Amino acid sequence: MPHFTVGILGATGIVGQRFIEMLVRHPWFEITALAASETRAGKKYGEQVDWRIGPAVPEEVYNMEMIRLDPEEIKADLVFSALPSDVAREVEPKFAEKGFIVASNASAYRMEEDVPLVIPEVNPDHLALIEIQREKRGWDGCIITNPNCSTIILTLTLKPLMQFGLKRVVVTTMQALSGAGFPGVPSMSILDNIIPYISGEEGKVENEPLKLLGELDGDHIRMADIDIMATCTRVNVMDGHLESVLALMESNPTVDDVKKAFKKFKALDLPTSPEELIILRDEMDRPQPRLDREEGKGMSVTVGRIREGIRYLVLGHNAIRGAAGASVLNMELAAKEKLI
Amino acid sequence: MPHFTVGILGATGIVGQRFIEMLVRHPWFEITALAASETRAGKKYGEQVDWRIGPAVPEEVYNMEMIRLDPEEIKADLVFSALPSDVAREVEPKFAEKGFIVASNASAYRMEEDVPLVIPEVNPDHLALIEIQREKRGWDGCIITNPNCSTIILTLTLKPLMQFGLKRVVVTTMQALSGAGFPGVPSMSILDNIIPYISGEEGKVENEPLKLLGELDGDHIRMADIDIMATCTRVNVMDGHLESVLALMESNPTVDDVKKAFKKFKALDLPTSPEELIILRDEMDRPQPRLDREEGKGMSVTVGRIREGIRYLVLGHNAIRGAAGASVLNMELAAKEKLI
Amino acid sequence: MPHFTVGILGATGIVGQRFIEMLVRHPWFEITALAASETRAGKKYGEQVDWRIGPAVPEEVYNMEMIRLDPEEIKADLVFSALPSDVAREVEPKFAEKGFIVASNASAYRMEEDVPLVIPEVNPDHLALIEIQREKRGWDGCIITNPNCSTIILTLTLKPLMQFGLKRVVVTTMQALSGAGFPGVPSMSILDNIIPYISGEEGKVENEPLKLLGELDGDHIRMADIDIMATCTRVNVMDGHLESVLALMESNPTVDDVKKAFKKFKALDLPTSPEELIILRDEMDRPQPRLDREEGKGMSVTVGRIREGIRYLVLGHNAIRGAAGASVLNMELAAKEKLI
Amino acid sequence: MPHFTVGILGATGIVGQRFIEMLVRHPWFEITALAASETRAGKKYGEQVDWRIGPAVPEEVYNMEMIRLDPEEIKADLVFSALPSDVAREVEPKFAEKGFIVASNASAYRMEEDVPLVIPEVNPDHLALIEIQREKRGWDGCIITNPNCSTIILTLTLKPLMQFGLKRVVVTTMQALSGAGFPGVPSMSILDNIIPYISGEEGKVENEPLKLLGELDGDHIRMADIDIMATCTRVNVMDGHLESVLALMESNPTVDDVKKAFKKFKALDLPTSPEELIILRDEMDRPQPRLDREEGKGMSVTVGRIREGIRYLVLGHNAIRGAAGASVLNMELAAKEKLI
Repeated sequence: MPHFTVGILGATGIVGQRFIEMLVRHPWFEITALAASETRAGKKYGEQVDWRIGPAVPEEVYNMEMIRLDPEEIKADLVFSALPSDVAREVEPKFAEKGFIVASNASAYRMEEDVPLVIPEVNPDHLALIEIQREKRGWDGCIITNPNCSTIILTLTLKPLMQFGLKRVVVTTMQALSGAGFPGVPSMSILDNIIPYISGEEGKVENEPLKLLGELDGDHIRMADIDIMATCTRVNVMDGHLESVLALMESNPTVDDVKKAFKKFKALDLPTSPEELIILRDEMDRPQPRLDREEGKGMSVTVGRIREGIRYLVLGHNAIRGAAGASVLNMELAAKEKLI
Repeated sequence: MPHFTVGILGATGIVGQRFIEMLVRHPWFEITALAASETRAGKKYGEQVDWRIGPAVPEEVYNMEMIRLDPEEIKADLVFSALPSDVAREVEPKFAEKGFIVASNASAYRMEEDVPLVIPEVNPDHLALIEIQREKRGWDGCIITNPNCSTIILTLTLKPLMQFGLKRVVVTTMQALSGAGFPGVPSMSILDNIIPYISGEEGKVENEPLKLLGELDGDHIRMADIDIMATCTRVNVMDGHLESVLALMESNPTVDDVKKAFKKFKALDLPTSPEELIILRDEMDRPQPRLDREEGKGMSVTVGRIREGIRYLVLGHNAIRGAAGASVLNMELAAKEKLI
Repeated sequence: MPHFTVGILGATGIVGQRFIEMLVRHPWFEITALAASETRAGKKYGEQVDWRIGPAVPEEVYNMEMIRLDPEEIKADLVFSALPSDVAREVEPKFAEKGFIVASNASAYRMEEDVPLVIPEVNPDHLALIEIQREKRGWDGCIITNPNCSTIILTLTLKPLMQFGLKRVVVTTMQALSGAGFPGVPSMSILDNIIPYISGEEGKVENEPLKLLGELDGDHIRMADIDIMATCTRVNVMDGHLESVLALMESNPTVDDVKKAFKKFKALDLPTSPEELIILRDEMDRPQPRLDREEGKGMSVTVGRIREGIRYLVLGHNAIRGAAGASVLNMELAAKEKLI
Repeated sequence: MPHFTVGILGATGIVGQRFIEMLVRHPWFEITALAASETRAGKKYGEQVDWRIGPAVPEEVYNMEMIRLDPEEIKADLVFSALPSDVAREVEPKFAEKGFIVASNASAYRMEEDVPLVIPEVNPDHLALIEIQREKRGWDGCIITNPNCSTIILTLTLKPLMQFGLKRVVVTTMQALSGAGFPGVPSMSILDNIIPYISGEEGKVENEPLKLLGELDGDHIRMADIDIMATCTRVNVMDGHLESVLALMESNPTVDDVKKAFKKFKALDLPTSPEELIILRDEMDRPQPRLDREEGKGMSVTVGRIREGIRYLVLGHNAIRGAAGASVLNMELAAKEKLI
């Protein structure tokens, strides 16, 4: 069984909290460092965090002394990054340079040619970019990224549709509050309301899947030739992004063909993998965020209402499968493949 | 100035309440009868209704004695029907037969060949079907219908796009609670949640616009040749349906062309008409249900985020423009045109 | 280890679902019967229930065939009743007569002189009424009741205050939606709102604690001499009743005295008992329903903001500690004490 | 008819927006200046404000150029202050010194001996402190304050109870989101939740009524001898504070006595006064924030569920009667009494 010590960068935010929740009793990974902005350094984690995802900070990390975002201070084999994109852009390369494997949830480096953007079930082979990256940048470590939350949930359903000649996707997302972090969306903005815009989100949903579904071609990824049109909205739901999808495919599969393709698409055998990757619901009124988001401990996605078109709805837990769990799964894959 | 006495069928429901709100001080119409199910007959309206749209039942109708859904009992020139579809199917023809003009918000007769399905700004000429209907059915009165709430809001934006050769529409709706009536959606179903299905709704949104945008051809309507794909969801918003629309057009208009077309599309000069029919918002994060639904006293629709595609979001008040106000406006049009 | 087969009466409601959740893998109890209204009899539980408390009905009961509320049909040692009060009034005695031990969450028999109304940590000795009840009614079985949800949460904090000469309690509750069952509160009634009234609730909160905190005196309970004034409101929260309490005591204890008394008040050693009975939070802004309701798997209560007065806030999970868990704990106590 | 030009300090916040809403077509007051923090100075109001209380900034102020919080720059007879307390503490005296009448909604000076804290219907005579204040401080202008939002709503019901020898009040408030301003409460903090604490609020509710209900005694106010115990919570409601009140009185009035006292307590004859000051509802389930907060254009309070005790619930619009409307009403009173 692999064993790695891990640090978490940006440990006090919502995604940082989810990292802790997922890693605190992880069979392979052991949390040895929690880092955040300078002002928190030297203080106890439990006293610095506004813990939002349960009654109390796990005992195992409560008294851990926080450190700065400085590779010199961290004692860990790997780091998980839940940093805001602008901070990540500056900080992550410093860690990679110092030999750290950085599993990043930030958007800063996702689309760089030599940086793997990976969903383990979708494009595990793209991890091969690690070697290219190390060579090109002269780093001992590396940066491995996972996509944006809405992208992950969507792409887990697009991958099995690729066999039908996927050409065009029209998607409207209804995204949960936790996706905006904490404090994030003001309550006065969202009570009895919808906000039909999330800054930067549509570009990510339209572009990241092209890399994920693209093919590794020597030292880079050949983008998939799909046209994605996204409209992203924010709704008054705590966790769980729901996406209304229309997927146009060349071979025009039936609803049944699509169901079979979804069922055939399997989870990997990693510690954080769900038992079932895509859960199909036959009820007319599913998936629903509150009822389905915890499926597979938040690592499954649930699909329902598959209709001619092909149209369907897909739901996933944005903060688990769409963020912290995505990074953890990437690192588990890299560990299993002995790439780290 | 025209003057008609009016009755309201189904006066205690949410749409019934909106009818009262809109008619209680109407310049042309005077409420003289409130009808509902047998059990309420003979009782005071104010004591029978669970008034949900303000602090108190308007004084003008509080003490009005309710009557049965029986044309013999009603003293009024016109009736507005907020009946459930199954009741409407049975009751409305009885009224039409007895000479009443019935403005119906129910879906029962909308798609019948000789029944006008009208949005005054979209297809006022379809009222000509009244004569066909009377002839064919031998009625002194007639039934005039307005579309489903989501359809109205959508179609007000599709009409000005017809000039560009509208071919295909993909729409995902996020619909408000009041659309399901009262008691309607249980709170436990919708708190921290979305319900991705509304029974019967998608069929209405996909079919009714074809009649509305169709052409009057002698004694029937030639359906418009448009392909509409709808996904309808329920969100935790009191009033105001938001719709995410993709409209594919033959002549491929620019965003600017579309804006101009929307601006040119004007409200009529009727008592309930809004000043501005389609309000265009340039902000990235509009329209929003809570902020925009009351525009034009609930009779305008607000459009935002027009992007290449053409994609946009449209919002309207489902219970006013999408229901009671729709019937009232139809009757105002008919009155002005001296068709009633 | 004790072993009993159990039936659940009213198995499809919210409390029924919680019973299943708590019993499906219970170490002592094994579900062998699920009963509900006649119309569901003979059908599969999983197809009859609208499962609201998670993604899916537990496999163990999905295919169980439902039966009628008839003691002749049930094969079980004990029954848990989640029946509405009026149905319970009629049905529960029939079961007790036929020899069943009935653990009832209904209010029908709570205040009857020979019926134990019990919270295991508060008044376990009141179970002695079982013998009185059997003698008096000539039953082989018996009815054991637990209090109303708000009463349980409140009384768990009043018990340790009895030592200070508790005289008067003023309480305002903010109660969760699940307390009203499903469909229960309409969403249009509670979105952006509070309903300052819950039918029958205040009487229960004012009277039931007097019996719970009273003393067993031969064949009946001598009511505690406390004056309780309750105002009960419904708020837009899924689970977890929050109560704002003022407790006036003769000996005028300090905040510290009260904290010590709460800490000393311990859970029992039963399978469903929480580790900590009363969790004290020192933060200014706790307890909060969403964050604290799952403490002790929903069987703890959380107290915060203890101030001179004595004033404090207490929170508990209404559907677990306040309903299903209360009945289960009572039955566990009875089993351990070999009273059943 | 009096005529005054007025400035608004802190014009972009929620209370500032409410000031504009109430003053933009006010018969006596004309908005001539909108001031806020330095960074907004010189810019158009409509482009600086995040307008939250309706679809759009009123035209009348959209293009008004904002100015700094500097008495030299403002051209107005009076100023309304919606400043945060710490800013108000520094800024308001500068305005008073320069001769401005300052109607302040801030808490900074409310409890100072020579500063009138006024609710026009409760203690209009306290405005006499203006003269004391001017003498003592050597100001040409003066500061007139209104109480905290929860205090106003509560005190409007306590005033008519004074005749019965009011001794003790126990109140639990359920306060709306807008009371925390914008952005204020994060949505993740309040969805499916209650926050049982509002910083500083309980002290205000416990102390301010003592001054309001106190008697003017020469140059100061003799505090009323009442013991108030408050617990203040935040709930997921946009506008409208609901308060659960127990009022203990020496003469022990009946429910009927109290109803009569409430009915006798009348609004004044000022432009912003509501027709009915205290609206009594007889329904078991009123007042409710969403249904009752707009009564009297937000200037009435609604009382319900008056029970022996005396216990009752009172609701008022926190941002109108409890903030902007309170300041406006104070200024109208001062204008009518020719004190300004």
